[in-house]
Amino acid sequence: MSWENTTSISSLLTLQDITRAAKEPPNPDASTPVLALSAQVRSKGYDLVCLPLTTEKWKKRWTEMCLISTGVDSTTDMVAERRAEAWRAKPGFLLDEVTMTELEEAEGVTALISEWLELDAADDWVRHDAEIALRQELAYASYLNVQTAILPPPRSREYVSSYARTINACLKSAPYIHLSVRLAIYNPTVLEASPMPSPPLPSSLFAGSPTPSTPRLVVPDDRGGETSVVNLDATWEMWDTIRSICDYNTRLSLTLDLTPPLPVKSGFLSKWKAEPIRHLFLPASTFIANSKGYPVLPKGTQSFIRESMTHRPIVILSGANAGLHTRGGELAYSQYLRHLEKTSPAIQAALTSGTVENFAQGYQDYLQAPLQPLMDNLQSVTYQTFEQDPVKYHNYEEAIYQALADWQGEDLIILCVAGAGRGPLVARALSAIERSGRDAFIYVVEKNPNAYITLQARKEAEWGDKVKLLFGDMRFLEVPEKADILISELLGSFGDNELSPECLDGAMRFLKADGISIPSSYTAHLAPLSSSKLYNESRASKDDKGSETPYVVMFQAVNLLSGDGASSSGRCGPQVQECWEFEHPRKDAVVDERTGLPLTNSHNARSAKLEFFIPHAGVLHGLAGYFEAVLYGNIGLSIHPHRKDRISKDMLSWFPLFFPFKEPLYLPSNSELTVSIWRMTNQRQVWYEWHAEAFLNVVGAPPADSDVPLPSPNGGSFFGSPGPARSPSPFVDGNDSAFDRRSFRMDSYSYEASGGSKLVKIGHTSLHNPGGRSSWIGL
Amino acid sequence: MSWENTTSISSLLTLQDITRAAKEPPNPDASTPVLALSAQVRSKGYDLVCLPLTTEKWKKRWTEMCLISTGVDSTTDMVAERRAEAWRAKPGFLLDEVTMTELEEAEGVTALISEWLELDAADDWVRHDAEIALRQELAYASYLNVQTAILPPPRSREYVSSYARTINACLKSAPYIHLSVRLAIYNPTVLEASPMPSPPLPSSLFAGSPTPSTPRLVVPDDRGGETSVVNLDATWEMWDTIRSICDYNTRLSLTLDLTPPLPVKSGFLSKWKAEPIRHLFLPASTFIANSKGYPVLPKGTQSFIRESMTHRPIVILSGANAGLHTRGGELAYSQYLRHLEKTSPAIQAALTSGTVENFAQGYQDYLQAPLQPLMDNLQSVTYQTFEQDPVKYHNYEEAIYQALADWQGEDLIILCVAGAGRGPLVARALSAIERSGRDAFIYVVEKNPNAYITLQARKEAEWGDKVKLLFGDMRFLEVPEKADILISELLGSFGDNELSPECLDGAMRFLKADGISIPSSYTAHLAPLSSSKLYNESRASKDDKGSETPYVVMFQAVNLLSGDGASSSGRCGPQVQECWEFEHPRKDAVVDERTGLPLTNSHNARSAKLEFFIPHAGVLHGLAGYFEAVLYGNIGLSIHPHRKDRISKDMLSWFPLFFPFKEPLYLPSNSELTVSIWRMTNQRQVWYEWHAEAFLNVVGAPPADSDVPLPSPNGGSFFGSPGPARSPSPFVDGNDSAFDRRSFRMDSYSYEASGGSKLVKIGHTSLHNPGGRSSWIGL
Repeated sequence: MSWENTTSISSLLTLQDITRAAKEPPNPDASTPVLALSAQVRSKGYDLVCLPLTTEKWKKRWTEMCLISTGVDSTTDMVAERRAEAWRAKPGFLLDEVTMTELEEAEGVTALISEWLELDAADDWVRHDAEIALRQELAYASYLNVQTAILPPPRSREYVSSYARTINACLKSAPYIHLSVRLAIYNPTVLEASPMPSPPLPSSLFAGSPTPSTPRLVVPDDRGGETSVVNLDATWEMWDTIRSICDYNTRLSLTLDLTPPLPVKSGFLSKWKAEPIRHLFLPASTFIANSKGYPVLPKGTQSFIRESMTHRPIVILSGANAGLHTRGGELAYSQYLRHLEKTSPAIQAALTSGTVENFAQGYQDYLQAPLQPLMDNLQSVTYQTFEQDPVKYHNYEEAIYQALADWQGEDLIILCVAGAGRGPLVARALSAIERSGRDAFIYVVEKNPNAYITLQARKEAEWGDKVKLLFGDMRFLEVPEKADILISELLGSFGDNELSPECLDGAMRFLKADGISIPSSYTAHLAPLSSSKLYNESRASKDDKGSETPYVVMFQAVNLLSGDGASSSGRCGPQVQECWEFEHPRKDAVVDERTGLPLTNSHNARSAKLEFFIPHAGVLHGLAGYFEAVLYGNIGLSIHPHRKDRISKDMLSWFPLFFPFKEPLYLPSNSELTVSIWRMTNQRQVWYEWHAEAFLNVVGAPPADSDVPLPSPNGGSFFGSPGPARSPSPFVDGNDSAFDRRSFRMDSYSYEASGGSKLVKIGHTSLHNPGGRSSWIGL
Repeated sequence: MSWENTTSISSLLTLQDITRAAKEPPNPDASTPVLALSAQVRSKGYDLVCLPLTTEKWKKRWTEMCLISTGVDSTTDMVAERRAEAWRAKPGFLLDEVTMTELEEAEGVTALISEWLELDAADDWVRHDAEIALRQELAYASYLNVQTAILPPPRSREYVSSYARTINACLKSAPYIHLSVRLAIYNPTVLEASPMPSPPLPSSLFAGSPTPSTPRLVVPDDRGGETSVVNLDATWEMWDTIRSICDYNTRLSLTLDLTPPLPVKSGFLSKWKAEPIRHLFLPASTFIANSKGYPVLPKGTQSFIRESMTHRPIVILSGANAGLHTRGGELAYSQYLRHLEKTSPAIQAALTSGTVENFAQGYQDYLQAPLQPLMDNLQSVTYQTFEQDPVKYHNYEEAIYQALADWQGEDLIILCVAGAGRGPLVARALSAIERSGRDAFIYVVEKNPNAYITLQARKEAEWGDKVKLLFGDMRFLEVPEKADILISELLGSFGDNELSPECLDGAMRFLKADGISIPSSYTAHLAPLSSSKLYNESRASKDDKGSETPYVVMFQAVNLLSGDGASSSGRCGPQVQECWEFEHPRKDAVVDERTGLPLTNSHNARSAKLEFFIPHAGVLHGLAGYFEAVLYGNIGLSIHPHRKDRISKDMLSWFPLFFPFKEPLYLPSNSELTVSIWRMTNQRQVWYEWHAEAFLNVVGAPPADSDVPLPSPNGGSFFGSPGPARSPSPFVDGNDSAFDRRSFRMDSYSYEASGGSKLVKIGHTSLHNPGGRSSWIGL
């Protein structure tokens, strides 16, 4: 898929546009007003058309049937109710209630479902009848072969679960059509009451629609008074409830309404990156005029749209023909959007050759099983792909060069390339030797019999006597003499995940005691991640073990949930945290004197427990895994998102690792996430297990139930002894008032401590890949 | 299963006991000390024996290999490490490291795994080697055919996920043995430092074991200082993590250590009711002496044990032979436990005939599909079971009697029993008529052709001309004349779940306009519920749709999570809340004039949104559903847990309904749960959908990340205009500093509001039974 023109621009036609077109003289090329408008819109350069499915007539009929209840004139009410019942039994439109009747009119059209339908009304009957109306509209849109319908926005946090239940039912009953939930990126009613910069158009979300339900979540504060929860995450929270109730249906997407102005930089926006944004809704009124009078967007909106380009969104422009801005005319709006597209960093990176983004085209958010080069013999084409990396091999050569330059001995320096593949490190080592002017010889070890043919060919054609080839597995092979410098490229996306530690344990047999390993160490790093796309991909993959294996993924529609800021508990680390390290040669080696190999693999087991701060509410879908390696001295390789550009910019060989979670875990703003990960090993396998727990800082309050233990009044006083009236049975109660006092103290102690705030657990994931269920690395 | 002697008592043998027995003269009947001790214990009346699997020798060897690191003498360290590696490669015992070697010794024995194993040590190596040791011990126990092993207690909240991961691995690798996690009911270190009432025995959990890891969860408070979280739920929280990570494995149970004294009445204890308690560990030191010197238990412990009897636990008594109490000797302890058993209210209820508990024996926590009497014709034996209910029919007769007594007309009163089954209501109606002295006639409607035979037989034998039988479905049948009083028994556990509303809609055709329906109304009620047992049962049932259908269940090992107390938000209702009501006859009927039937079933759709306060942390596994019906006047039927005894005590006909959740939802203390439930209907089916969201009151704090939007310094001042240096491109930015200010205000507003506390969402369940997936009620 090419990155040129990633964005489609759609023009929103209004009912007024259609009414106006109907009054125009007949057009020989277009038999209906909608066809005439569509042709017009396309001739102006728009890619697509978006229009309402229904007319005001439908709204009037539905309202009269389903909302009007006089409560005075019972005969009128009964007539309305009878009409409504007849409609409920057999829902359908009349001709003048819809905007389109022909297949041609609907071709390529995105239909707006009646936005006045209150699927989340507080009133049961309104909700019930709005659902029937929605089903009727979707059935009609499907009849016209409409591919995507934009749903009326949810208006009420209070009844969003009812809205969501309805959408889920519609997704199940209409098996083809895509549904897109229209949603403001935040709820502008949290702003102080101040006039909008320009009057909103009728097509804007915030006008013209009945909103009897309050769109704000209002809860009493802890002093009993009412205060509105000013929550910038509120609309996202509604979306999260909707898509969760719809079980992440892949036919459900977002139409993000960008009408309200956006802050220039705010963490609360980044969460949208992980969501399935299909449309961006942008009224002309959101544009402001620049000094020349041309329509441009506020800076916050600009940068949000630039960042959203990776979603290849359809931008729905509304009111571009209303002449709101003095310069540029109708086309100025779409030209401006094309300008944003061209200046989007993501698009620019993708178009620049040599970048990872360019190299990775077509692989974004695509799950690949990690390579198992120890168990499988790689194909030549795989080697070729990796050999294209200009940065990795450059850094290897520098590392070898510096190691040679630093080498103290005067004798011939023995190098060994362990796991040479088709020989790229051999060539780099020879080049480093030549540059260093040192006298050196290379042993070349490879266990892949097929790659060994290539090595033989290269020795004959290029390397001659400067190298000696040895065929076999470095863990067991006999090497004629010990090496001073051991060079290997066994690293995976998570560092040790392709069994570099286990292989190098074997290779240590032929490294001198004071020898150097390149790489000399590597670390594994993790960050918690949200991504609807990856969640769906991982659970769809193969079988129900899909969520038990880590995958190699070029991340795109993902959001790292962790923040760098410290939590109030002070126990959290940075956004991306180190799990563990492997060093070569090992310091604490205990080996079998006979074989030179470790007696067990226990020393390569690892575990980590990491604490992440989650500044903004989000849903945990998995963990992002990265590695960083020190090759030699200050030369390294890194795919750590914050450090890779400093250490090995534009290196292509590794995409990150993705550790999926089977069930999404909801994380509120300001929560803390504890991630446990284990590198497990037995005599035959290595695997990872992972698990997470969420915590939140809460207001302490004494439990309000009536169970508070009190010193039992019947238990006898601590100072008195039980009277003689007691039964002489051996089972009579003892004087345990001391215990009661103890119990009471115990609980009251707890109340005291809970006067402040404390961190409480709020949820956890399952344990993943227990017992190496998917046994993904064979030793 | 009988309720007599539900509790088994096991005697804990210590290593000292075994050492002492080994010094006794040889016993011809017992070839080993363990066999001799076992025989002795059983002769004292104990049911079972519990003993440590390993000796001090094993502890010594393991400690020397795995813990000793001098850091001074590297040769010594290397020798230890070499021994450890050899052991890790091939783990196994020496003869004197185990207490039992023969199958006979292990018969019926519960084995205590070495309690000094720190599976949750902070040190990676200690954990690693403890896991190998645990696997070795379990393998040996399995070899000896031990059925249940009691695991060392988790000691550290910090590393409990590592403990849990290990147990999970052991459950997978040892496919038969049952594992029981020993756990103090709460952590007594939260008590002020005060001496325990008597020195703990070596076998007690709180002595003799190395506890380098702190057993208290210590977190810094919000002012940066350190404060310990005094959390009485902490041990339960550890248990919850363990069984969750072990995915509710049915071979994993609890050995609840009752060493610390218990409060007399405390909400935090009730959660244990929902957990798989297999053993209660009770040292003699927990007993106190009553005035006669006999050992008795503190009142809190007494009542906890009485309530736990429904789990049929094995009580492990330790130190009963140590002579801690002056009277009664060793047998006094188990005699006292038998006394508690006999005085347990649950056991007493089960043993009293006429109670629900007695009637329901064998059905506790057993999932039954709800009856569908409309779709299926019931068997005679089913009718017979329900006819045994003395309370239900008594109340019906009273209701009919009072309705007749209140009836104003002087003419013959027409009664109609709609859905007569085998006729119990007909008989009761005749009896009521006779008592009332009124002149009445009964139409008897039944659609089950088989039951209709029984009705004919009873008419012939008992009822004669006082009744007329009509065969057919009350929704469509023609009845010769309209009734004054319509009597039906169509209620399910949730009221409307056997389609009473739909059936009575049809029967309304033959009820006079001023007629009476018995029942006149009914309500459905819900409460959130926790139960490991029911969670496992529902997910095991049939297919993966197991969690999509409600079940009829006689609850036992369950805990209602909601409290009656008000939450700090003030929005929560009582422990059990009403969902909706149905009234007969309907007030707002709009019917088809031709058929007399409603045009659609829309009026029988219902929905409810309920807010529950959760005082104590727990795991939500489902919803408990109840009904309450008004038959006539103040006569009703109820299975509402708080009201049933007042309205219809000892009524047997209905167990509650259980709405399962597919995934457990963790609810912290003081959280709030929003439950949404819908009664859905289309033209062919009726079904329920349900969903829940959890909320928690949190300390507001500004997000600590660096993303806080600030007025952009480059955005131009609000008071100045952009200078002339700007590029003349039509895409140049506009002066949107006003937007920046707006954005900034917006976020700072949010910070202000978050200075107090607010309710934030912390999790949710899936939507259940969407679209009536399991279509459990056919119309």
